[in-house]
Amino acid sequence: CTKPSVGSQQRRRMVVVKAETINPEIRKTEEKVVDSVVVTELSKNITPYCRCWRSGTFPLCDGSHMKHNKATGDNVGPLLLKKQ
Amino acid sequence: CTKPSVGSQQRRRMVVVKAETINPEIRKTEEKVVDSVVVTELSKNITPYCRCWRSGTFPLCDGSHMKHNKATGDNVGPLLLKKQ
Ligand code: FES
Ligand code: FES
Repeated sequence: CTKPSVGSQQRRRMVVVKAETINPEIRKTEEKVVDSVVVTELSKNITPYCRCWRSGTFPLCDGSHMKHNKATGDNVGPLLLKKQ
Repeated sequence: CTKPSVGSQQRRRMVVVKAETINPEIRKTEEKVVDSVVVTELSKNITPYCRCWRSGTFPLCDGSHMKHNKATGDNVGPLLLKKQ
């Protein structure tokens, strides 16, 4: 087969921007990190769950989102599970 | 005051690596995006909540983590809230 002609058009430069992972470290051997909470088993009135992927107690939030937000200008925070 | 002497040491080059935000778009006018779920009000047996910051139905998961994982090689997934 022959290459398609580009005629008088300039070839386009390809710029590939590689998007970034948001989870640098947690359970990287798992294909997808999914966690389950049986809500009837929650013991505290409010339990914060991590959405920043920086918690030392993942899937729970340990406040590490604050350091991440300060370092990057981001605005992420936890999901709060409330019994009432 | 005087600058401290660096003596015969070489000055260190400063390499600043800017960490990346993990939330590019969701509710960026809020200082911190925190959501609450009153678990007694969950209607379905399983409700997935987003932790990838890419969902069109945030704070709920709409499956957008799959596109993010494929594009970046990441392994993030939702938090599943289960009634039992
Ligand atoms: S530590 Fe990740 S949201 Fe708080
Ligand atoms: S869409 Fe974000 S975790 Fe599923």
